[in-house]
Amino acid sequence: MKITILGGGGFLGRKLAARLAQDGALGGKPITELTLFDLAAPAPLATPFPLRCLGGDVADPAAVAAAIPPGTEVVFHLAAVVSAAAEADYDLGMKVNLQGTLAVLAACRALGTKPRVIFTSSVASFGGGQDAVVPDDGRQVPTNSYGAQKAIGELLLQDASRKGFLDAVSIRLPTVMVRPGRPNKAASSFVSAVVREPLLGLSTDCPVPPEFAVWICSPRSTMEWFLHAATMDTTPLGADRGINPPGRSATIAKMLEALETVAGKAAREKVGFAFDREIYDIVVGWPAAFAATRARRFGFVEQESLEELVQAFIEDDLAATKADRGL
Amino acid sequence: MKITILGGGGFLGRKLAARLAQDGALGGKPITELTLFDLAAPAPLATPFPLRCLGGDVADPAAVAAAIPPGTEVVFHLAAVVSAAAEADYDLGMKVNLQGTLAVLAACRALGTKPRVIFTSSVASFGGGQDAVVPDDGRQVPTNSYGAQKAIGELLLQDASRKGFLDAVSIRLPTVMVRPGRPNKAASSFVSAVVREPLLGLSTDCPVPPEFAVWICSPRSTMEWFLHAATMDTTPLGADRGINPPGRSATIAKMLEALETVAGKAAREKVGFAFDREIYDIVVGWPAAFAATRARRFGFVEQESLEELVQAFIEDDLAATKADRGL
Ligand SMILES: NC(=O)c1ccc[n+]([C@@H]2O[C@H](COP(=O)([O-])OP(=O)(O)OC[C@H]3O[C@@H](n4cnc5c(N)ncnc54)[C@H](O)[C@@H]3O)[C@@H](O)[C@H]2O)c1
Ligand SMILES: NC(=O)c1ccc[n+]([C@@H]2O[C@H](COP(=O)([O-])OP(=O)(O)OC[C@H]3O[C@@H](n4cnc5c(N)ncnc54)[C@H](O)[C@@H]3O)[C@@H](O)[C@H]2O)c1
Repeated sequence: MKITILGGGGFLGRKLAARLAQDGALGGKPITELTLFDLAAPAPLATPFPLRCLGGDVADPAAVAAAIPPGTEVVFHLAAVVSAAAEADYDLGMKVNLQGTLAVLAACRALGTKPRVIFTSSVASFGGGQDAVVPDDGRQVPTNSYGAQKAIGELLLQDASRKGFLDAVSIRLPTVMVRPGRPNKAASSFVSAVVREPLLGLSTDCPVPPEFAVWICSPRSTMEWFLHAATMDTTPLGADRGINPPGRSATIAKMLEALETVAGKAAREKVGFAFDREIYDIVVGWPAAFAATRARRFGFVEQESLEELVQAFIEDDLAATKADRGL
Repeated sequence: MKITILGGGGFLGRKLAARLAQDGALGGKPITELTLFDLAAPAPLATPFPLRCLGGDVADPAAVAAAIPPGTEVVFHLAAVVSAAAEADYDLGMKVNLQGTLAVLAACRALGTKPRVIFTSSVASFGGGQDAVVPDDGRQVPTNSYGAQKAIGELLLQDASRKGFLDAVSIRLPTVMVRPGRPNKAASSFVSAVVREPLLGLSTDCPVPPEFAVWICSPRSTMEWFLHAATMDTTPLGADRGINPPGRSATIAKMLEALETVAGKAAREKVGFAFDREIYDIVVGWPAAFAATRARRFGFVEQESLEELVQAFIEDDLAATKADRGL
């Protein structure tokens, strides 16, 4: 089975590549080739199957076609300009998040073999804010350009699935924490920072108050969801290819409690609060809770506890993050 | 005030142009120029203000920019490839309905003066079918490419409104009946045909059964909604620029009753039933009823009765349709 990861050099793309390398197979079928595609060719990793690492722009149809060779059965479309960056540069967001998804659609359609496409949509495609508990048929009224572009990507891939051009599952990812590395341009960067920075021995300021709730999930759950979306029977999904996965609603205060439980009081005390209006204005529109009944029925696994999530970061990513940041 | 109608040569575009010509003003402001834009330059009509009739492709950014000159305050974006045509030719639908709307967005944004844009979305952007009563926050899960492209257009214009590039109101039009002229490529063509053809003395076959319900409105109501959308205060709409206007749910049987009331038994007997799977499969997904509470609250007027609607066709369009079809 040939697999392509677009955005394969990013946080979730690299984790996914590592997982596929470890498993050597997907849904019981041996992997025969993996293509990692990103703006700059992703660094190679050790794999038990042939690996191609390509650089290119996902908005360039020829580059995307090269990344999705004939025989590709599964495409993970993770390439995106994230929330705060797409808000700051509307044209860049439209190019990558809209024209990019159109290029992916065209390349998959050209194969003529209806590949499975896993699209990473986002909680940011919903409005509603702190008080909402989004039902499975909740309407997407995005309050930011990134969210609008994700909702549009879902509509495009859903219709392309109905037409038989490809076979899409769009996972509306919660904010994935703990993200390794450095703070990034996602408006939700602080959600990871409040746990990661203290574990690195660094202080950090949280731009929203402690009672602010976020719909979150872990990288480990995300990988389970990706693999399930890649191998599940899509027939029961019907026309609606969007999945609200079973994440977890957590306040900053609860995250800090989990941090203290796992890493002690000193870690927790590294976190201060400094309100940031610009960030707050973006994230305040995102709903903090979802029903996610449909996803559970379709076999998407439950998110682990906050303590397990903090522990997993220590096991999976702390050493690499320290090395990466020269700490 | 300068106004542009894209798709100004079509059914609703021509009716709107005639109404603006008659009123000479919009929202109390005199009209200083009207541009009609369509694939072929629309035929001129008598207007008390300067009129430009331009031919061009709405997917061509330069042509659209020429159709929306500096100082344009209101743009009616009606240009579209309709339902059955967009289903039969996916690429054409994407070009006109998606890239066309992107070109409209770009041209309006380039003005720098935030023009009001009235976008004609459609009931076809919803799924749910016969049993649904779509609430105001009902989710759009389109069951056809046209509907998907309309839902995408709404998201694009909504986000562009939030960004301050333009000021959009998207009206999700019911099936407008009675459409003058000939049967067309809309899957809903029969909804008008069951009233129009008998009034022309012609027989017609209805492709769906008599108990089939449709969410409908009249051209007269549509014009009221267009003018209201062009002049209303959009602030209370907030992030959600989509309007489900107060149409009417009517079965084919009820339409035929109204036809009989207005035009007699002989007219009604011109309508036969011949099931058409291809048409049925498209229209069966469209919901036949909407709550439309929000639209009423925002001042969109109520749809008149079916009898009034049939009578209005006789008054407004029957003679022209007869002449047009050489009857
Ligand atoms: N991490 C989260 O919390 C989260 C939450 C919701 C949705 N998502 C979505 O999941 C996906 C992966 O997220 P991530 O956290 O790994 O993000 P990331 O930023 O780490 O990875 C995205 C990758 O896309 C690449 N990319 C950007 N523009 C590109 C272009 N023009 N051509 C090719 N590649 C391009 C980037 O270089 C980057 O490596 C994204 O689509 C994101 O929107 C993530
Ligand atoms: N009439 C209805 O029942 C109904 C219902 C729901 C939504 N709508 C929407 O309302 C709008 C007007 O509907 P209508 O009934 O007047 O349709 P219509 O087909 O009579 O008019 C649409 C016009 O768009 C023009 N057009 C098509 N492709 C074009 C292109 N590439 N460049 C420029 N112009 C192009 C056509 O030539 C046509 O004149 C459409 O957007 C339609 O989708 C109509």
